[in-house]
Amino acid sequence: MSKLVIVGTVAFDAIETPFGKTNKILGGAATYIGLSASYFNIDAAAVSVVGGDFPEEYLDLLSNKNIAISGIEIVKDGKTFFWSGRYHNDMNSRDTLVTELNTLADFKPVVPDNYKDAQVVMLGNLHPIVQSSVLDQMNSKPKLVILDTMNFWMDCALEDLHNVIKRVDVITINDEEARQLTGEYSLVVAARKIYEMGPKFVVIKKGEHGALLFHKEHVFYAPALPLEEVFDPTGAGDTFAGGFAGYIAQTGDISFENMKNAVIYGSTLASFCVEKFGTERMQNLSSDEIHKRLLQFKQLTQFEIELT
Amino acid sequence: MSKLVIVGTVAFDAIETPFGKTNKILGGAATYIGLSASYFNIDAAAVSVVGGDFPEEYLDLLSNKNIAISGIEIVKDGKTFFWSGRYHNDMNSRDTLVTELNTLADFKPVVPDNYKDAQVVMLGNLHPIVQSSVLDQMNSKPKLVILDTMNFWMDCALEDLHNVIKRVDVITINDEEARQLTGEYSLVVAARKIYEMGPKFVVIKKGEHGALLFHKEHVFYAPALPLEEVFDPTGAGDTFAGGFAGYIAQTGDISFENMKNAVIYGSTLASFCVEKFGTERMQNLSSDEIHKRLLQFKQLTQFEIELT
Repeated sequence: MSKLVIVGTVAFDAIETPFGKTNKILGGAATYIGLSASYFNIDAAAVSVVGGDFPEEYLDLLSNKNIAISGIEIVKDGKTFFWSGRYHNDMNSRDTLVTELNTLADFKPVVPDNYKDAQVVMLGNLHPIVQSSVLDQMNSKPKLVILDTMNFWMDCALEDLHNVIKRVDVITINDEEARQLTGEYSLVVAARKIYEMGPKFVVIKKGEHGALLFHKEHVFYAPALPLEEVFDPTGAGDTFAGGFAGYIAQTGDISFENMKNAVIYGSTLASFCVEKFGTERMQNLSSDEIHKRLLQFKQLTQFEIELT
Repeated sequence: MSKLVIVGTVAFDAIETPFGKTNKILGGAATYIGLSASYFNIDAAAVSVVGGDFPEEYLDLLSNKNIAISGIEIVKDGKTFFWSGRYHNDMNSRDTLVTELNTLADFKPVVPDNYKDAQVVMLGNLHPIVQSSVLDQMNSKPKLVILDTMNFWMDCALEDLHNVIKRVDVITINDEEARQLTGEYSLVVAARKIYEMGPKFVVIKKGEHGALLFHKEHVFYAPALPLEEVFDPTGAGDTFAGGFAGYIAQTGDISFENMKNAVIYGSTLASFCVEKFGTERMQNLSSDEIHKRLLQFKQLTQFEIELT
């Protein structure tokens, strides 16, 4: 079974949306990526850090989804990373209310020995030096390394970010961040500039407008499923990345054609994520639900113009 | 050969984009719709009005593309409708600099007798009373009536707008306008509310993010082709509508499955429109160029996940 290493935060989130608010609930990039990847037939491990305040039931939740937690360090006298945010009415923008780094401030990720030969590595959003240190620990170059990042690191650690971007095969990034990273408004031109930085594949996430996959002169567009209601967008990008990475790890096929499917799986899983607060919807999806939604994606996008 | 009646402005536009500016050039909704529809094997007629200042070469241009101009009234001592606008750097928003209604102020459209039995009617953006008066002139209910409109009429002629919306089969409208018309943020819910106003099909245009087609519980998503450069977005929405209407008229098939193809043809033609100023790119497309771009749309959207 293919191994997938997932690096990222395991955290507390407190979320406010127009539909309500939560107290501290389970969150974090590695959590969302892991839950999403858990729907594939792979051997996944999370590499992260939490404090002594982190409930065992949350760790059990990950374990029960077959996500190895031996790489999650528990700092007994430390506190877990905490993020709190409030979404605006359009759900496309949010204000960060609280960011407490806590144990994350000194996080030195340790990849468990039995995962140092993983075929796929998913570097969730973290300081680029932390992301790099994970790659340093792998026995050999993994078959595919995927990096997610955000504008915060462009503002405050751009050189480090460039150093890790050099080392990855796929970058997932949102549209505004792609524009910031390259100084190009056209996403086609931005993707081309990112190729020059290292990654051979560029995934640009556009939220409710879907995602674009670029590779050489090829481009593929997966829409987001139009939903009656987006309840909470938190974690949707990470869920997308987890579905993408999980599908690639399961199939072991890193061709552009197969990556199209990975983007569709990522979009499909992300469409569930936003239906409830936090990770709730991602904890217990049935394969039947996923299958039905994949069919919806087919109906949403496939057409029958005969061309030769 | 199926007949298509196109109602809308034939106008002068002066356009400023970050790439340059034009003097008064050929523009107008009916012009863009007509040029786009001219790439189908149909008998199309434009119904509009111009002033004595309108160059004969522009009318010849339409005639030469097999768009009947007998329904374009020429008011010898009047001036042609003139619009001028300036696009912002992101090309997604613009300021209107000048709007001179001129002959459009008193426009009473007259459908030529030999087009009163047209199977398809495309009501381009105009005052809803003018749009209604075209429907009044048809011999019988056309097979398909498509309406394009904009927020301006929601602000100043909402009741008249509702009266014409009631009478049409398909509405094309942009995302912000769909939200304004229905008071719903979710486009899925907005489309459902628009069904209740009359149209059985709702096309929501999202500019660079593509277009959605809604019918009952079905939805289809056509992305816009990601382009290196959008040179001038003027007329893209009308070009989309013209491709949609032209394809429906040619095929005579108003099923949802066939409308998906119509949306793809509309998107394909719109992707050319934005490549040059004004109507320039739409004046001389080869069937080979269109065919190649349809293939690009297939590659952009089609994937191979086997599902039963």
